Amino acid sequence: MSTDVALGRESAMRSGPIDDAFATLARRPDVISFAVGAPDPALLPGDLVASLTAAAIAKHGNTALQYGLTQGFPPLLEQARILLGGRGIGCSPERVHISTGGSGALHNLCMAQLYPGGVVLVETPTYGPAVKVFRSHGALVVEVASDADGMLPEALDNALAQHDPAFVYLLPTFQNPTGRTMPAVRRAQVAEVITRRGALVVEDDVYADLRYRGEPLPTMWSFAPDRTVYITSLSKTLAPALRIGIAVLPDDLLEPVLALKQGIDMQTSAFNQAIAAEFLGTEVGAAHLSVLVKSYAAKLHTVVAALDEYFPAGFTWTEPDGGMFVWVAGPTGFDADALVVPALNRGVAFLPGSAFFAAPDAPRNAIRLSFASVPEHRIEPGIELLGGLCA
Amino acid sequence: MSTDVALGRESAMRSGPIDDAFATLARRPDVISFAVGAPDPALLPGDLVASLTAAAIAKHGNTALQYGLTQGFPPLLEQARILLGGRGIGCSPERVHISTGGSGALHNLCMAQLYPGGVVLVETPTYGPAVKVFRSHGALVVEVASDADGMLPEALDNALAQHDPAFVYLLPTFQNPTGRTMPAVRRAQVAEVITRRGALVVEDDVYADLRYRGEPLPTMWSFAPDRTVYITSLSKTLAPALRIGIAVLPDDLLEPVLALKQGIDMQTSAFNQAIAAEFLGTEVGAAHLSVLVKSYAAKLHTVVAALDEYFPAGFTWTEPDGGMFVWVAGPTGFDADALVVPALNRGVAFLPGSAFFAAPDAPRNAIRLSFASVPEHRIEPGIELLGGLCA
Repeated sequence: MSTDVALGRESAMRSGPIDDAFATLARRPDVISFAVGAPDPALLPGDLVASLTAAAIAKHGNTALQYGLTQGFPPLLEQARILLGGRGIGCSPERVHISTGGSGALHNLCMAQLYPGGVVLVETPTYGPAVKVFRSHGALVVEVASDADGMLPEALDNALAQHDPAFVYLLPTFQNPTGRTMPAVRRAQVAEVITRRGALVVEDDVYADLRYRGEPLPTMWSFAPDRTVYITSLSKTLAPALRIGIAVLPDDLLEPVLALKQGIDMQTSAFNQAIAAEFLGTEVGAAHLSVLVKSYAAKLHTVVAALDEYFPAGFTWTEPDGGMFVWVAGPTGFDADALVVPALNRGVAFLPGSAFFAAPDAPRNAIRLSFASVPEHRIEPGIELLGGLCA
Repeated sequence: MSTDVALGRESAMRSGPIDDAFATLARRPDVISFAVGAPDPALLPGDLVASLTAAAIAKHGNTALQYGLTQGFPPLLEQARILLGGRGIGCSPERVHISTGGSGALHNLCMAQLYPGGVVLVETPTYGPAVKVFRSHGALVVEVASDADGMLPEALDNALAQHDPAFVYLLPTFQNPTGRTMPAVRRAQVAEVITRRGALVVEDDVYADLRYRGEPLPTMWSFAPDRTVYITSLSKTLAPALRIGIAVLPDDLLEPVLALKQGIDMQTSAFNQAIAAEFLGTEVGAAHLSVLVKSYAAKLHTVVAALDEYFPAGFTWTEPDGGMFVWVAGPTGFDADALVVPALNRGVAFLPGSAFFAAPDAPRNAIRLSFASVPEHRIEPGIELLGGLCA
């Protein structure tokens, strides 16, 4: 095992900035937290879940409490296919399975595809916790140059000439951490490179349903259906605590991933799957989603207006079409990492942009603002405070 | 990577005899299935879980639906400590965490402890799916000679002189597949070897609460608290589909296992944890358990009586004090593997004993009977049929 791989694996076994201790601190009621990428707790549908639970048990009886099939609880698999169809993913039913959250799907894939020293190519910036997952499997995580539209096709082509990666990891829609979305033309270009080079791409699409303006784009999967692992989840639309993910695999990964999943958690909770099937299969799901979208869209508007008002010259930010994140970049010399503790002391939490790079020399001039879980009336005061600290 | 390790890892990526296809077949309503180690579906508490869900949401509100702490949902951690205390495990609170089923706890540990080529020592026979898990992490699984009381201390001592294993895997109480229980004296002897050799032991104790006679024995943990990973679960007493496990770790494994768990499934469903906390924290839990114990004890009695009645001379079987399994050993030359398909064709499912060995030359003369999920009135006809086929 190379030193890089060994160090990476060791680092993945240590706590990081979004682990329990920080999470506890950032959740203190007196702190305005832009740190945690979680849904608005006030909009989590407690009463709805209680009634969906009663309906699921009435419908499925004890089947919903027993060991189930590794692929998934059939009624949810059926609903998942409808949801995927709505996103233009018309794959054969056996390619779909239910995972324990979107993160579970990613972990299962890593178990099948990654060996110590294997390479994963990522965007810059990228979803930080995914880098940690890849490293926990012994991967060498290699950054590929990216711009405001996501990974650059020519940079990917060059990287694929140099490396034979286990996969390329992308979050093309409302990216965590930047909020950016890869345009359709770029998706087609990236898919062309992936296909020509015989590579595999992971499309992490867990924010797809949180669109506040514009029309949905074709998925990366639609450009390279046999070379894409597609992952989505109900954590952002129903509830994180149900831990329900949906994954679509190429044919050759079906058997290894499901065989390995048996050893990882046997199967995703059939009980939670039965509840999720009720949510997706009735109109309450769509109604709840429209409430979320309306509320988060208003919050995003408030964030951008407050940034305009309170952030000093030299700072720029993304204005995403959906999702939960705004990325604020400061001028050269601005050190967001040095601001984390002073901000917490003043009552505002955020994650520094450096947490979202794989390379050790990550730029330190950016701030990720996760706005969905912040109460509407605290957004402006929080950003005013942060803006003052940035000045 | 050695050939053994590579082949083992590859085999772990293929489906096995208790995978979805077989499970579907063995669950056909016309088949009397002694194959699946699942609770009695008729005793799974659907209405109770619906009311516990309502109570949990009323009590915890949306906290039960949000992302939670990786270690666990605090009210369940509290109940877990009480449950562990009742088994004589009085460890410090930070050593306890909630896993996604007992299998999730084992997988998390493997992520932290196993590297390709690492060794795991197991009993003969041992819990087959665990062997597959170890191999999926690249382990070399080495058998240690065992008798009716479990692993032999002197054989373990010799194995530890030869190998430096990541851990020794034991299921000391109501073992799956044999039903045997390691006596207290043997536990103390094994713990002495573990401690003297500086090894780590995994005590898989998921059947502990299903005791039908006799007094509980001291856990392996109690003999070697700093060298034991203790794993238990609510799958056999509340419901498998909730996927709730409880794990106790030595201090030096706390940070790596929890850091890795973040990348595996982030956290175990807080929703299901809140339901489990209600189950353990109220009298309904104890009442439900006593119903289970009474029913399963009667079934075990029926199994043994039917074996006495219908099995030919030359066959012997265990008479466990608890759990879900009876192990039937045939005479030399008896081939249980060859009986699986003929038995299924006649309407009886079972797993051959050979599925519970790590070595390729597994003995083929045993049958594992899992009786808990078989309806009481079908046990005798099923065993009569099997006995006829064995004759």
